Amino acid sequence: MFEKCVSTILLLQFCCAGCGFCGKVLVWPYEMSHWLNLKIILEELLQRGHELTILISSRSYLFDYHNPSAFNFEVIFVSGTREDAEKKVNEFLDAAVNIMPTLSLWESAKLFQNFFLEATEQFEEVCRKAVYNESLMEKLRETKYDVMVIDPVVPCGELVAELLGVPFVNSIRHSVGDIIERYCGHLPVPPSYVPVSMGGLTDRMTFMERLKNMMFTLFFNFVLQQYDFQFWDQFYSEALGRPTTLCETMGKAEIWLIRTYWDFEFPRPYLPNFEFVGGLHCKPAKPLPKVLWRYKGKKPATLGANTRIFDWLPQNDLLGHPKTKAFITHGGTNGIYEAIYHGIPMVGIPMFADQPDNIAHMKAKGAAVEVNFNTMTSADLLSALRTVIYQPSYKENAMRLSRIHHDQPIKPLDRAVFWIEFVMRHKGAKHLRPASHDLTWFQYHSLDVIGFLLACVATVIFTVTKCCLFSCQKIGTGKKKKRE
Amino acid sequence: MFEKCVSTILLLQFCCAGCGFCGKVLVWPYEMSHWLNLKIILEELLQRGHELTILISSRSYLFDYHNPSAFNFEVIFVSGTREDAEKKVNEFLDAAVNIMPTLSLWESAKLFQNFFLEATEQFEEVCRKAVYNESLMEKLRETKYDVMVIDPVVPCGELVAELLGVPFVNSIRHSVGDIIERYCGHLPVPPSYVPVSMGGLTDRMTFMERLKNMMFTLFFNFVLQQYDFQFWDQFYSEALGRPTTLCETMGKAEIWLIRTYWDFEFPRPYLPNFEFVGGLHCKPAKPLPKVLWRYKGKKPATLGANTRIFDWLPQNDLLGHPKTKAFITHGGTNGIYEAIYHGIPMVGIPMFADQPDNIAHMKAKGAAVEVNFNTMTSADLLSALRTVIYQPSYKENAMRLSRIHHDQPIKPLDRAVFWIEFVMRHKGAKHLRPASHDLTWFQYHSLDVIGFLLACVATVIFTVTKCCLFSCQKIGTGKKKKRE
Repeated sequence: MFEKCVSTILLLQFCCAGCGFCGKVLVWPYEMSHWLNLKIILEELLQRGHELTILISSRSYLFDYHNPSAFNFEVIFVSGTREDAEKKVNEFLDAAVNIMPTLSLWESAKLFQNFFLEATEQFEEVCRKAVYNESLMEKLRETKYDVMVIDPVVPCGELVAELLGVPFVNSIRHSVGDIIERYCGHLPVPPSYVPVSMGGLTDRMTFMERLKNMMFTLFFNFVLQQYDFQFWDQFYSEALGRPTTLCETMGKAEIWLIRTYWDFEFPRPYLPNFEFVGGLHCKPAKPLPKVLWRYKGKKPATLGANTRIFDWLPQNDLLGHPKTKAFITHGGTNGIYEAIYHGIPMVGIPMFADQPDNIAHMKAKGAAVEVNFNTMTSADLLSALRTVIYQPSYKENAMRLSRIHHDQPIKPLDRAVFWIEFVMRHKGAKHLRPASHDLTWFQYHSLDVIGFLLACVATVIFTVTKCCLFSCQKIGTGKKKKRE
Repeated sequence: MFEKCVSTILLLQFCCAGCGFCGKVLVWPYEMSHWLNLKIILEELLQRGHELTILISSRSYLFDYHNPSAFNFEVIFVSGTREDAEKKVNEFLDAAVNIMPTLSLWESAKLFQNFFLEATEQFEEVCRKAVYNESLMEKLRETKYDVMVIDPVVPCGELVAELLGVPFVNSIRHSVGDIIERYCGHLPVPPSYVPVSMGGLTDRMTFMERLKNMMFTLFFNFVLQQYDFQFWDQFYSEALGRPTTLCETMGKAEIWLIRTYWDFEFPRPYLPNFEFVGGLHCKPAKPLPKVLWRYKGKKPATLGANTRIFDWLPQNDLLGHPKTKAFITHGGTNGIYEAIYHGIPMVGIPMFADQPDNIAHMKAKGAAVEVNFNTMTSADLLSALRTVIYQPSYKENAMRLSRIHHDQPIKPLDRAVFWIEFVMRHKGAKHLRPASHDLTWFQYHSLDVIGFLLACVATVIFTVTKCCLFSCQKIGTGKKKKRE
């Protein structure tokens, strides 16, 4: 480790500058936009001289582990090809965006359940082929990693960390209904002013909206927990050889890096081991090539003469161009943060996952207009665009969010890296972990104490009533005897 | 303002470096150790080129406003002399430390109540002579302050801010039973793992301790709120000419600077507008003069030959001396932070206010031993000293806290100054303010939603039961008729 560090110091001026030593980092990532965000942190860690190993399944379609890379890859070999996996994801995206909105709630739930069960099967295969692969686990154990960085949206990373005895840091936007953060991280989510995720609500709710928020909370608590957690509880218990739960294991995270900040998030209670590092991937715009549009597929016959189509364009540079007036977006967190960074108002056309929530946040903060993907006409889109371009409040609010984003005591990426390196330096961050993790759920909610106090009050009331009745009876009997 | 800024730039290299402009800061301080802590922030603001005005009563005994100072002073003239005020404070300290522990709980509470009522009368006089002094208020209004920095342990600062229309930042260690932070700042304090302040408990509580914590919470909620808040609610409503409360006004604080950090505090939920800046006054030790002891008063006849007595000594430099083995302390927050900063284990002899809590924190973190001030013998003190010096865990834990303290992404003083300047730059920090402030207490606790849901459940149960009974009756009647 020391040799590597010295050679890196020679190459990179700022090697291990903030850390004092070069560490070994094991990563449990997830695909799609999750990876795009996490990669920024990992590249920064690499720049600072740490050694990074990424644990991926052979089915992963985002990671080109055959070609040379600054990252090391450890591959978990599973059935199926990368093409199958990509096809499956595209099928799901198509179903979520195009098919589900046309179905009844019941049909939609059934379709979702099918995808969910199939995905769980695949995740289980990856996990089983990782933790029961003795030679892989032994190799990882021998490397003596200093920290694991985990995207907990798919289970297993924390199980690997537990088996290796390595402290870990979670990086997450949010889980469905916040169940992971709430149950496993003990993040308080008061339903009166903190909208539960995936509900599309804001922090200022009417009575009916607060009722809806409470119902969402209960729904996610009971239904989703039953579906997902129980399966993994058993899997984790078997793998660790002692009774445990997914949540207990996941809750051992030293730090939770959340992919939002108060420019985006509604102010809400949080814990010292939660760090809000939204927008860490944003950077100043570079000069643009002559690019106007991105489109994958056939060029539509009706395309106007003032529109060009491209397969890829540098979204961040485009948003940072001084002539950019508005951003039409599906509402992914990464894209929204690029718009916030550059102070660009948005027209949101959310499709699924956190996108409706993200657009609800931007609408509530006055920086976006929403258009419904399934019902919109070209007139709707035009009207929305005109609104965000010509009503000055949208630009002003986008600029306000941008000012908030840029005016932080320390940049989000630096904070994320600081806390990962902190965990390496101190072998954890136990001083930030609330003692609530050692309580049962009824102790956590003080139900035993409240029950005891209510029992005391009931006993006092009962005794006083009995005494009164007894006294009245006595007096009554006395009077009766006197009369007799 | 601009001229002042330019002249300061010439004098100080880092004038307004982080802020971009020189602002005007109005300060509502409190005396004793509160001032010692706040002064560090104010001196830093002064260094950065801001203009500071301190609003004090003519009775204040800590502020020598007759002599030249880098601060401006605005004096509120009230009855009584500074000597009277100092005498009264000393009387209270003597009662709290020496008299109250010898009294019964009832006598002690009565004595405390007397002091409390007398103090409230004095605070009320100061407040009245400030907010109803038209010329003073006009002068302050004309100065157009950018921010107020307030120690909210004594009310009125936030009322002045409200009357002037100036955003404000609170700086506080904690209030009695955390009522100000809980009620006015909406800080969540779950009683199952967050010990309410002044209770001397830790974050790991037995059932009986959790019961005690709940009782303390209820006690502080009902009794103290009745005593103190109602009086000021009326005062504030009169001064503002509209119905309001102390809490509503105090709760408008843009930022709460709390004088602890996670090296000292137990991990607990908090809000984005709460910043934990404990130890901001600490700094590296300077070389020591030949000093061993501080004592005000007559030299005791029994004093050993190896002990010298002094009226004052540089505590921080002494704690930072490599030969310092232990710190015997009354347990004030400032002193404890100096010990944490230099990694010195402690023998705590707490007396009153937050001191028993502070020592409970240090004991729980394994960096201190407690000795009872009222019952201790020289043997107890010696034994405690030997324990912290010769049992290595105490030094190790003190060093661990020190490492945590020094390993922050940004220093506490810089964070405190950053957020005060942020409020100046943005005229507030509303993006950090939870929406809970717009809810009534029963909405905040979701009591209306829970009530509605319970009513729904009750209605369903009632209807189903009625239907069942009706059906049974019908069947019964049918059978009866058949039999007939």
